[in-house]
Amino acid sequence: MNYYIAIDIGGTQLRAAVFPEDSSIPVIIRKIPTQQEGEIPLNRLYSLIDSVWAEKQPVVSIGVAVPGPVDPYTGIVMETPNIRGWTDLPLQKYLEDRFHVPVALGNDANLAALAEWRYGVGRGHRHLVYVTVSTGIGGGVIADNRLLLGQRGLAAELGHVTVDPDGPLCSCGKRGHLEALASGPAMARWAAEELNKGRPSCLPPGLALTAKQVAEAASAGDTLALEAFQRAGTALGRTLADYLHIFNPSILVIGGGVSQSGSLILDPIRAALCQYVISPHYLDSFILATASLGDDVVLIGALALAQTLPEP
Amino acid sequence: MNYYIAIDIGGTQLRAAVFPEDSSIPVIIRKIPTQQEGEIPLNRLYSLIDSVWAEKQPVVSIGVAVPGPVDPYTGIVMETPNIRGWTDLPLQKYLEDRFHVPVALGNDANLAALAEWRYGVGRGHRHLVYVTVSTGIGGGVIADNRLLLGQRGLAAELGHVTVDPDGPLCSCGKRGHLEALASGPAMARWAAEELNKGRPSCLPPGLALTAKQVAEAASAGDTLALEAFQRAGTALGRTLADYLHIFNPSILVIGGGVSQSGSLILDPIRAALCQYVISPHYLDSFILATASLGDDVVLIGALALAQTLPEP
Repeated sequence: MNYYIAIDIGGTQLRAAVFPEDSSIPVIIRKIPTQQEGEIPLNRLYSLIDSVWAEKQPVVSIGVAVPGPVDPYTGIVMETPNIRGWTDLPLQKYLEDRFHVPVALGNDANLAALAEWRYGVGRGHRHLVYVTVSTGIGGGVIADNRLLLGQRGLAAELGHVTVDPDGPLCSCGKRGHLEALASGPAMARWAAEELNKGRPSCLPPGLALTAKQVAEAASAGDTLALEAFQRAGTALGRTLADYLHIFNPSILVIGGGVSQSGSLILDPIRAALCQYVISPHYLDSFILATASLGDDVVLIGALALAQTLPEP
Repeated sequence: MNYYIAIDIGGTQLRAAVFPEDSSIPVIIRKIPTQQEGEIPLNRLYSLIDSVWAEKQPVVSIGVAVPGPVDPYTGIVMETPNIRGWTDLPLQKYLEDRFHVPVALGNDANLAALAEWRYGVGRGHRHLVYVTVSTGIGGGVIADNRLLLGQRGLAAELGHVTVDPDGPLCSCGKRGHLEALASGPAMARWAAEELNKGRPSCLPPGLALTAKQVAEAASAGDTLALEAFQRAGTALGRTLADYLHIFNPSILVIGGGVSQSGSLILDPIRAALCQYVISPHYLDSFILATASLGDDVVLIGALALAQTLPEP
């Protein structure tokens, strides 16, 4: 039996799993903190791979998900917001030199899209758009059964499009991006600002609200919290209508923490999609779905990548 | 020698050309008005094809560009804004039944993108975004050497994305689309409105300004006309920065009448691209170019389509 190794490099957690070549159920999965004082993250990654790779187990390839821009053609990590020093890091070469098997790198949101398309709710769809809404907003696109990468693997940054030129600052430094209006923190920030203006709500006062608190309050019927979801869902849905015009997918998959709020976020998204599409044909044979693979979606995407190394 | 026939169905003009199989230079090209009183446009199309198809000339296939949404998989024209009655028209079947050769249909802006990629300024690029700016704004995308179509061929409607939720009405009925802010008529309308407010300008008063008049005034140094181009170019550039984030192309081709204004429109586009991209990596090995194939770009796109019939 041959095996694949899949790695999910998160800002806070490193995950590694070993998959038999005929299954998306791992024989082993291990998680450790990405950073520990006095240790180099790359060495922690090496040790983690050593620890899951049983002796003499034949491994075909290693797929690696990176939390930031990565060039999948050269295997170079351009930067990772949460791991210091990983700028222009030739991670593919380092791993291939260390482990002597082919290694492929991909951006985490792209690989989550690949996972949902290959093993999740998007199976059988030739044209899929995946948007993950949590701390940030990321994306991945399957166009005609292939992952959309662009010339340097930087495509499908679906959270970084301008939806309101005068809107709030985004984490990337630009203004009015979808992420700045509809991510979890953006929703919580808006609710906190409204609270501070004296709007009645069962939410606790102060500026340190979380999206989870807003979701709980909304589930309990709090008007302000409900409006926060309504606003974010409408902004999302209007931009997702643009993505229907741009990609004409047969399925749109919403992942990430915020998607777990179910109809709170899906109802306004669905309403905005219907309102903003330029032709009902975009909704023919179209499905709006939530992600199906849970917390390990990126790891399963790294498996899918390992199974289909991109051509150089 | 085998031949291809290419057809460009415009709202006002039907064009047909015959190309030898090894060339993009037609042996014959003919243009007639699309509509004539008392005649059915489909019959005019049949006659036009008859008139260019010399007797016994072996024709491999016919490629047809349609000015509106078309399903390239079924060969059905969904609608054409300027030809009455062409709704859900099985044009591919009609033409195949009439001429007994394979026929393929495509949207005109998509085929213009295909033309620039295969025969124009985009040759050799795996990842191309084409935007045509004239009466409307349309688009086409080559992703990884393939035309982006989506599940029903409705992808790459790059003019119909919301860039200002409170902006002017678009031709499609929605509000604040790129087309409503940056097309030729949008630019002329804005200038006319400013004139009506009493802004000094060498432009003629009244609301019937054309984009051509604005371009001429801008070339002569008129401040208001220059500002019209600056505004449209900035709106375009900001949205094109989004397309860089979405597609990460190595070339962005601007076509259509407005692109002929050269630096008047390209300078603000270029400035906005630099201002709004989230990472300079998007501009690595990146070219901003104007379309190179002139008035026959769609016809050449129909040729390219005929040469590579899409799989059903």
